[in-house]
Amino acid sequence: MFEVIGERINTSRKLVQSAVANRDAGYIIDDVKRQQEAGANYIDVNAGARIGHEEEDMRWLLENIQPNAAVPLVLDSPDPTILEMAFQMMEKTPMINSISLEKERFDAMMPFLKGKECRVIALCMDDTGMPVSSDDIVGRADKLVKELNAIGIPTGSIYIDPLVQPISIDSSKGTMVLDAVRAIKKKFPGVHITGGLSNISYGLPQRQIINRIFVTMMMDAGMDSAIIDPLDRKIMATIRTADMLLGHDQFCMNFLKGVRSGAIAS
Amino acid sequence: MFEVIGERINTSRKLVQSAVANRDAGYIIDDVKRQQEAGANYIDVNAGARIGHEEEDMRWLLENIQPNAAVPLVLDSPDPTILEMAFQMMEKTPMINSISLEKERFDAMMPFLKGKECRVIALCMDDTGMPVSSDDIVGRADKLVKELNAIGIPTGSIYIDPLVQPISIDSSKGTMVLDAVRAIKKKFPGVHITGGLSNISYGLPQRQIINRIFVTMMMDAGMDSAIIDPLDRKIMATIRTADMLLGHDQFCMNFLKGVRSGAIAS
Repeated sequence: MFEVIGERINTSRKLVQSAVANRDAGYIIDDVKRQQEAGANYIDVNAGARIGHEEEDMRWLLENIQPNAAVPLVLDSPDPTILEMAFQMMEKTPMINSISLEKERFDAMMPFLKGKECRVIALCMDDTGMPVSSDDIVGRADKLVKELNAIGIPTGSIYIDPLVQPISIDSSKGTMVLDAVRAIKKKFPGVHITGGLSNISYGLPQRQIINRIFVTMMMDAGMDSAIIDPLDRKIMATIRTADMLLGHDQFCMNFLKGVRSGAIAS
Repeated sequence: MFEVIGERINTSRKLVQSAVANRDAGYIIDDVKRQQEAGANYIDVNAGARIGHEEEDMRWLLENIQPNAAVPLVLDSPDPTILEMAFQMMEKTPMINSISLEKERFDAMMPFLKGKECRVIALCMDDTGMPVSSDDIVGRADKLVKELNAIGIPTGSIYIDPLVQPISIDSSKGTMVLDAVRAIKKKFPGVHITGGLSNISYGLPQRQIINRIFVTMMMDAGMDSAIIDPLDRKIMATIRTADMLLGHDQFCMNFLKGVRSGAIAS
């Protein structure tokens, strides 16, 4: 089954930022509950947007979200000090968002991750920038898996983000990432593939249609998780339907449940 | 680029049947023009539903459609006598729909196809019925390609229909056909993959959503043609968007044209 990482609790979102600034716990708790009801398997928590307030904002968010979250949280920060504080507060095994091959981030995250029981999102980004080919993505994923394995993170706890790039800049950007996902899943069958999807449609109109069709292709290639807005009914309906078509829904039970609840509709 | 075979001119459709019975050429010509404007690359013509009238109905349809069709026609009949008559009327190289491995159809179609310049749809059906596994589909496709090659039909003129089966009867029916399409395209890179898609959603609600998501997966696997209703705007928008995401639309020109014309919209 595909796993949905709900992306909404992020202080770069205007309403979340003002709820955090005003310590409006009701707003945050309500949003978390709506994400869960819509099918989120994880709730991402990012408090990075109010410069100078990240540590206190993250703590306040976690204090309010954790008692109200039935699912595990994703601790989303580049700062290992804040992640360490957040990690100590966790009751369920969290996911860490994220490590990459950029030297500064890599060197900061590795000591934090070492010996911890957690899932981790690993971005195929390095100091040269975004990957430039399928082989490049696969090479970066290979390096990330091996480095993380070496500090005790098992392959099944690693969520590779191959970094989706806009099709508008180059018509091969779709197949580049699809081919890479297939190759990574072949090399490391237990690894997870995740990421945001909306970059694919950057610069184009009708972005939601493009995003929905692309998530279908990515799922077919082996993506088993994504960082999305679970309140986007159409993308959730696409994911549920694609999961059924890929054989992950015995007797079409989840699909039929989605239709009955009105979540899957034209 | 994906090729759309417009399925509407079929006497099993009520309005087409009465237009044919009443020799209402205007209705037929208008329908053909609408299919073309919507993007059909072929127009399928099937006159099989009025028992005892197939030959005269087919002749009348072709007499009226051919002068008004900018695209090639698909001659859709199990009867080689009717196909021979129809073939002689053609100005553009037609497609023949269809041969299969069912002994009666195979033995009737092979002498008709031998030495002809035409495209042909080849169904993975034999006297035991529908295929039961990916390997079974691939084995049947292999047999069809080799038999057709042997009578002079090149691989690039063969359109294999792997026969999509309902996901409601078995949750593996989606991956079974997707895996088969990948294997067939690997074995015969020049062969085309076509077929109807709507069987995938047989017995389920919200069939159009399922069909749209499944055509996306099939295109990603290598399907490059389908027998559909080109006036179904949502499936056409899906196909155009998927074609772009698969790298078949330089600078997103067709996609953007579709958005500007209103053909691609939420």
